This record gives sequence, structure tokens and C-alpha cells, in this order.
Amino acid sequence: MKRYLLPLLLITGFASAQSPLVEQARNYRKANENALLSEFMGLLSIPNVVYDTIGIQKTATYIVKMMEARGIKTQLLDATTKGVPPAVYGEVNVPNATKTVIFYAHYDGQPVNPNQWAEGIEPFKSVFLDASLEKGGKIIPAPKANEKINPEWRIYGRSASDDKAGVFSILTAYEVLTKLGIQPSVNIKFFFEGEEEAGSTHLSEILEKHKDKLKSDLWVICDGPVHQSGKKQVVFGVRGDVNMEVKVYASKRPLHSGHYGNWAPNPAMLLSKLLASMKDDNGRVLIKDFYDDVVPFTETEKKAIAKVPPVDEQMRNELGFMRAEGGGKSLVELINLPSLNINGISSANVGKMAANVIPVSATAALDLRLVLGNDAQRQAQKVIDHIKAQGYYVTQNESITDEERMKYPLIARVTTGKGYNAQRTKMDLPIAQNVIKAVKSSTNEEVVLMPSLGGSLPLFLFEKYLATPTITVPIANHDNNQHAENENIRIQNIWNGIETYVALMKM
Amino acid sequence: MKRYLLPLLLITGFASAQSPLVEQARNYRKANENALLSEFMGLLSIPNVVYDTIGIQKTATYIVKMMEARGIKTQLLDATTKGVPPAVYGEVNVPNATKTVIFYAHYDGQPVNPNQWAEGIEPFKSVFLDASLEKGGKIIPAPKANEKINPEWRIYGRSASDDKAGVFSILTAYEVLTKLGIQPSVNIKFFFEGEEEAGSTHLSEILEKHKDKLKSDLWVICDGPVHQSGKKQVVFGVRGDVNMEVKVYASKRPLHSGHYGNWAPNPAMLLSKLLASMKDDNGRVLIKDFYDDVVPFTETEKKAIAKVPPVDEQMRNELGFMRAEGGGKSLVELINLPSLNINGISSANVGKMAANVIPVSATAALDLRLVLGNDAQRQAQKVIDHIKAQGYYVTQNESITDEERMKYPLIARVTTGKGYNAQRTKMDLPIAQNVIKAVKSSTNEEVVLMPSLGGSLPLFLFEKYLATPTITVPIANHDNNQHAENENIRIQNIWNGIETYVALMKM
Repeated sequence: MKRYLLPLLLITGFASAQSPLVEQARNYRKANENALLSEFMGLLSIPNVVYDTIGIQKTATYIVKMMEARGIKTQLLDATTKGVPPAVYGEVNVPNATKTVIFYAHYDGQPVNPNQWAEGIEPFKSVFLDASLEKGGKIIPAPKANEKINPEWRIYGRSASDDKAGVFSILTAYEVLTKLGIQPSVNIKFFFEGEEEAGSTHLSEILEKHKDKLKSDLWVICDGPVHQSGKKQVVFGVRGDVNMEVKVYASKRPLHSGHYGNWAPNPAMLLSKLLASMKDDNGRVLIKDFYDDVVPFTETEKKAIAKVPPVDEQMRNELGFMRAEGGGKSLVELINLPSLNINGISSANVGKMAANVIPVSATAALDLRLVLGNDAQRQAQKVIDHIKAQGYYVTQNESITDEERMKYPLIARVTTGKGYNAQRTKMDLPIAQNVIKAVKSSTNEEVVLMPSLGGSLPLFLFEKYLATPTITVPIANHDNNQHAENENIRIQNIWNGIETYVALMKM
Repeated sequence: MKRYLLPLLLITGFASAQSPLVEQARNYRKANENALLSEFMGLLSIPNVVYDTIGIQKTATYIVKMMEARGIKTQLLDATTKGVPPAVYGEVNVPNATKTVIFYAHYDGQPVNPNQWAEGIEPFKSVFLDASLEKGGKIIPAPKANEKINPEWRIYGRSASDDKAGVFSILTAYEVLTKLGIQPSVNIKFFFEGEEEAGSTHLSEILEKHKDKLKSDLWVICDGPVHQSGKKQVVFGVRGDVNMEVKVYASKRPLHSGHYGNWAPNPAMLLSKLLASMKDDNGRVLIKDFYDDVVPFTETEKKAIAKVPPVDEQMRNELGFMRAEGGGKSLVELINLPSLNINGISSANVGKMAANVIPVSATAALDLRLVLGNDAQRQAQKVIDHIKAQGYYVTQNESITDEERMKYPLIARVTTGKGYNAQRTKMDLPIAQNVIKAVKSSTNEEVVLMPSLGGSLPLFLFEKYLATPTITVPIANHDNNQHAENENIRIQNIWNGIETYVALMKM
């Protein structure tokens, strides 16, 4: 690990509103940008989709090496179930520290369909662009060893922001402190999960199995984007999430659309009608009791929400649509409600592969976001009940028997992921106040305090198995294409992220 | 071309209700089955999707060789436009014949997605199965040179039935006559089209450019399946067809469904609602004026339809669904109405590739079947007007400008293929009566007389450019998975088809 320390002259330079520590961290980073990014690009080049067992192992091994290079004692934490991606764990004990903070990020990434990525950009051959694709960014060569790096450049690749940037920024923040000879104010533990994008199915096992090792006063979660206004944000909760798949069946074999069209049932039309029945034109979910069970915000949370800078118009312009769902409700209001979203639909083929057929089935992938009070399985059951109420026979079996086919006019296979519930940490806990103070010390700008992120993380597990609060401090740019093709991170966001985490380790 | 003639004993064997000619043809075929199928398998092994230019050329060349081996003078008929698949043409002049019949089939096939085909079955590596897949058929080795062939076996591969079986059966019928030393009763022309599955976009050019050569009294079209009852059928018309693609746009970039779900518009939901608005729960198309323009059947046609054996219950059982569309109307009624069918839908991913995103767009492939009186573009315009009436801004451009995005709340790209109209030949023409008589002479069973096929062929072009009637005499089994994965032909249908065409060449 080749890194440079700047001469003291620069370190103690012109005073800033940020804390001197953050200034020192920035200078260290500036002197080592190329080496730092080179290490990060190495991390990005390793496939990390959960079902790619070898890629997951290699990713974990790379992170272990990064930690060892920083002098951190590491260990892989297995689940009780075999073959589950391990969590990469490390710890640093600080003399006289009275509190322990665990820094969390995840090293696995969402599935990729390379065909959907822009030309020249591959999920696991990360490249630099001189701007975002949406702003006409072009691929540029990776910067040479001494080439100046423009912080507006972006790095494109799966997990560039979600969440290898988190792993990298946390570890680099720790590196900065050690290189600067500054002792953290808290005992530090590192916990890098390998199964987050697959629903953290075995996280509970890992937490339970290793609960003695994982004792702490707080988990700081590095995941998700900073606020769309560009301001740093501290997030006190997350929505829960549960995935469902709905597959509607028609004929046993594909049919010629001329010989049988408008007589044989068309599964794509059946699915369309079923999905259309789930929401009104304003995006309000029509499923019975869908908005029940919601725990209301506290007064503190309501005040925080009122202070969140409005970004709706900015985002509509940036994303290129005229009318949002919600019948006039704001983005921040809507992400604090339970939601139903179609992630994808598929039936036979479109485009060049389209043929004049009646398909045999049609499938929709759904995700339900849950707020405090919702239960994942209870919420999914409401969807199943709705499908039944539309006249469907619902089964979990992939293959439908002839008896079922001749007995029920409408047949759907509905499967539900394990999912997890929402979580919210009280903003007025003393340790929460420390976090807010630390993040504020890392920037001149206002910090957004958000009671809950729209996105999901399995944070309820930390409460359930470890009785420990969690607070999320994200670092990625909001326009990072997280979870989709052309995922990317803006380099300035990595730099800011390192500074944020330096401040947090010295909270 | 190695073929055998049976001893006369067999040729003049036990009397049958079929004509002696058909008996003779059968005996010739029985003595040459293995060699015949071997030639057919060679034809099936050549890729024939229109955009595969090399495959199309190779297919045409193979057919030319088949024709030359049968002593037919051949020629490729080009379109005026360059690069269009040529029609393979041949002619046989018969001394003293007063009528000329052109036998038509097409040698191109529908697009293939090999991933959707059953294990071990590839579109262009045709294989034998001992029964249909639906009935538990298993792959068996290709029969050896002298192995007995079970006529219930099937051959699986793209165009096995649609429509290389047509090309093969027509040419083999002619082979049978020459080998038996029997002179056809009409001058014969062969016309094998290479662009039918791509909408016969340049067929009009070919017909117009070569109209002197293509003079005849009748076109006999070998395409489509025999009646679902298993009986041979003579079809006097076809529906027209026009393809449309509807693509609904939302955000410019894919979004995290947690951070933006239920605020940012979801294109899969928008498309579902749009498609759902097009048909009621009984499958009746709700688009304004959709059922207008229809030319009613004549009394003769109505009588013929009344005699068509009902197959609805048989087909529902075979296809495995309890309730058909149409609110109780029969299959034969429904295929004589204009139809709207979804061929496929797609938005982002489902299954293993699904991710928690809001997709950027959602696409549906549609086909409209047209009956006599409908015009392809006028019918498509009704769909476009319907989409506009749902509040959509409709464009044909693939890329949507920022101005469009900020001006219109709902944006759809709608493209329409060229399509073609329906055609119907009068059943009481004298030459039509000859065809009916000939087909009846080839079977002991009742022959179904069908005023119009549910499927489509560009038969109006023959009327328009050549002022010549067309009659369709199909040969494939109805459960052939035409246009889809796992296309197949039942061997007995090839054998029956050869006999049908022998009778037609001697009509």
C-alpha cells in the first residue's frame, strides 16, 4: 500500500469552517488520489452478485487484504447455514475509548444484465467517464499515476456506489486516521455484509451466531445516496422491503395468434389487467388495507421532515417526466408510505424477437416497501388476497396440474420473498446527537436529517438480535443508477464520504 | 436423389375409397420414407430467419437443388429492392394442359429465441421425438436408412411445419408424379417466398416485376395447419395482419424503487393500464370503431361455417384452460372477427435478473388480425387514436426530447408495420370446386371447407397485382407450435400432405 503524507505546511493551512481534522483528511486524500482510486477499481472489477459464489468469495478476499494492509485484524463471519456469503469483519480497540461503533457496508451487488448497459460500459470492467451518461459523459482512459483527477468524473460499474464505495470509504477513513497518527475516539468494528442485495436472508443467523463479537453502542450504516439537493444527510431509519413474483398462466403451449387470438386467453393481457387493478391513476395502491398498520412520526421527526429541502421539481427535470405519481403529494411524503412497485414484466418477446404468438405465461416482479408498523409477510398477504379477489386461483407451484387448469379460469403463481420490516432510530438519543454533530463537522453545508430513507436495509435485525440502534450516513451521489444498468459514482462523493467517516470515527 | 419404385403388385393393391392415384403415391412414399425425411432434415438444418441473410441464401440454394434433382427448371425471382430474400421459382409445362396452377409455400421462418426451446431441442438442429412434448414425447435418434418410421413421431425445429413442410410436400408430390410416370393435369409453377414471416414486405414488388412469368389461373397456398379435428381443410381466405409496437416512457434513467417508487411514474404500470384499457374481461376490444368495416359472409360461406366441426372443448382441454375469451362465442366465430393480441411485453427484468428498480420504459408487441373490409393502416390508426384518447402523446421517434418529456405527462412511441389486408376467394368459382374435389379424392374423411383461416398470409397481393384467386390447402398438424418455441410437425401430416398435393396436381 503506497501512500504519501503531505508536509505539515499544507496540513495546517488556511482555516476552514470544517473541522481541522477534515481538512487534514482532505489533504492526505489529495496526495494519494491515484493510488486510492486504483485500489477501488480493483475492488470494482470483481463480480459480486450473490449467486456468483466464486465472485463473492473473491470480493471478500480482496476486502480482507484491504483491511490487512491497513493493519486491521480481520475475520470472516459465517452464517449457521452453509454456503452463505460471509460477512467480512474487523476490529480496532482504542485505549480508553468507552463506546464502540460498528461501521457497516455491503460488498454484494444487484444482478446485472450486461446487454442493458451502455456501449463500452460493462458491469465488472469499471471505466471512468468525464460526466454522467445523462449529461453526455464519454468514456475516458483511467488516469495515469500522476494525472490530476477531476472530482466531477464518474466511475461506472456494478456496486460503484452500492455499496463498494461504502466499503472503500470506511476503510480509507480509517487509513487516514492511522496515517495521520490520530487515534479514533471510539472502538471501531467493521462489518461488511455479502448478501444485502439478495434480501439479507441470513443476516439474522450471522448476527445471532456472533452476537458477543458484535456488541456495540451503535451501527453506522454506509449505504444509499446523499440527499438529492447534494447535501450530506443523516438517516435514522429505512423502509422495509419484500419482493413478490406474480406469474399468470394461460395455454399450455404457445399459440399462433391468428388461429387462436381473441379466443385463447392472453396471459400478457390478464397480467396487465391484474396489475392495473392494483393502483389508481394517481399511483394510490387500491389493495385493501394497504395503508393500515402505519406508525405515525413523532413530533421531532415531523419537524425534521418539514426541514428537508424540497427537490421534487429539480428531480422531475433531471429525470425527465412531467407528472409524478401521488396526486400532488411530495416525494418525501410518499417515501414515508408503504409502496407497491413493478420492477419488471415479461411475456414472450418484443422487438426483433417478437413473434405472432399468444404467450403461455406472463410474469411481473414486484417490490413492496414497508414503513414502521408494516409486517413484510402481512403486507404481501394483502397483495395475495387482492389477486384472489380478482378471481384468481393462487398457488406457489411452478407447474400447474391439468386438474388445476380445468378447474380455475384464472391461475397465478405468487411467490413472496422473506423480506424484512422497516426500522427507525429515535433522533434524540444522545449517540444520535453525536452522529449529527460529527457529520456537521465534516461540511460547510446544511446537513439533511431524514427520519427514514425511501430505500431499504435490514436494520430491524440489529435491533432484534443485538438491541443496538442504527443510523445511516450515505455517501453516494443520488443519480447513481443504483440497482440498475449503468451504476456509477461521482468521484467527489467518494472524497466527501471519506471525510464524513473520518469525522464519525472521531465523533 | 436415391428413390425406389415399388413393384406393381403393391401399387394396385387392396381397393381404397381414396383415388387409386393417392394409393399409388402412398406406396411410393412408403418405399422411400427414410430418404425423403433425410432430405427434409437437411432443409430444416439451415437457419431461415429473414434477418439472417446468409441463412436465407443457403435455404434458397438448398431448395433450388431439391428442384433441380426433380428435373424442374428453376430461377430466383428478385424484388426491385436490393438485398430482399428472393422467391425460388420453377415451372413445368404440361402438353395439352389448359390451366396453370402456382403452388406457393414460404421458406423463411419466425425469429427464434433458443433459450425458450425445450432442453435438447434447438431451432436449427432438428430432432425426432416419439410424440409431442405435451404428451411426454422424448428425443429419439434419427431413424437409420432402413428403420421403420412411426408416423406419429414428430420432427422438432423452426419451420418444421411453417413452412418448410409446405415446400417439401409440394416438391415431393411432384416427384411422386414423375416417378410414377403420371402427367399432371395442369401446368405447374412453383413459388417459394422468402419473406413471409417478416410480413411479405417486398412480395408486391416481386409479383409486379415478374407478373408475366407468374400468370396462372390459381395460386394454391400450402401454409397453416389442417383443421383441429384432424380433418383436411380447404381454406378460401385468410385474415390480414398488422404488427404494432407500443413503448411507454417514464424516467430517463432507471431509479431505485425505494427512493423513488410511488413518486416517479412506473412505465410497466402505465403500460399495464394502457393495455388493460384495450379489451374488456371477455376479450372484446374496446377501441372505438374496432369492429366496423367488416364485410359480412355470403350465404355459401355461412353454410360452410355452420358445417365446421366444433373443436372448442377439445382445444380447451388440449391447451389446458378453463375459460376462453369471447363471452361464449365459438372459436370459428371469433377468428372471423378483427382481433387485437399481445404478442409480448417487456420492462426491465423478472426472475433471477429482477432488481429493485423503476424501469425507464415498457414495451408491448401487438398484432391486429384483419377481416375482409378492414384496412391494415386504418385499423392501426384506431389503436393509435385510442392511445391518444388515454392521454398519451404519441410519437414514432425512439428518442424522446427533453422538451417532449417536460410537456407531456404520458408519452408513447407507437410504430406500425406495413401489414396487409384480408382476402377471401369465392367458394363457388369452378376452379374452387375442382380444388375441393381433388382434396376430397385424397382422403376417406370429411373435408372441412373454411371461408377464412384465423391466420394471415398476404393473399390480397395476388388479387391486387395478378388478379388471380388463391386457395389455401394446409397440411401441418394443428398442435405444431407454429411461430413459437418447440415448433414441430407430425410425420403423418407430411405423408398426408404429399398425397393432398399429388391429387391437386392432377385436379
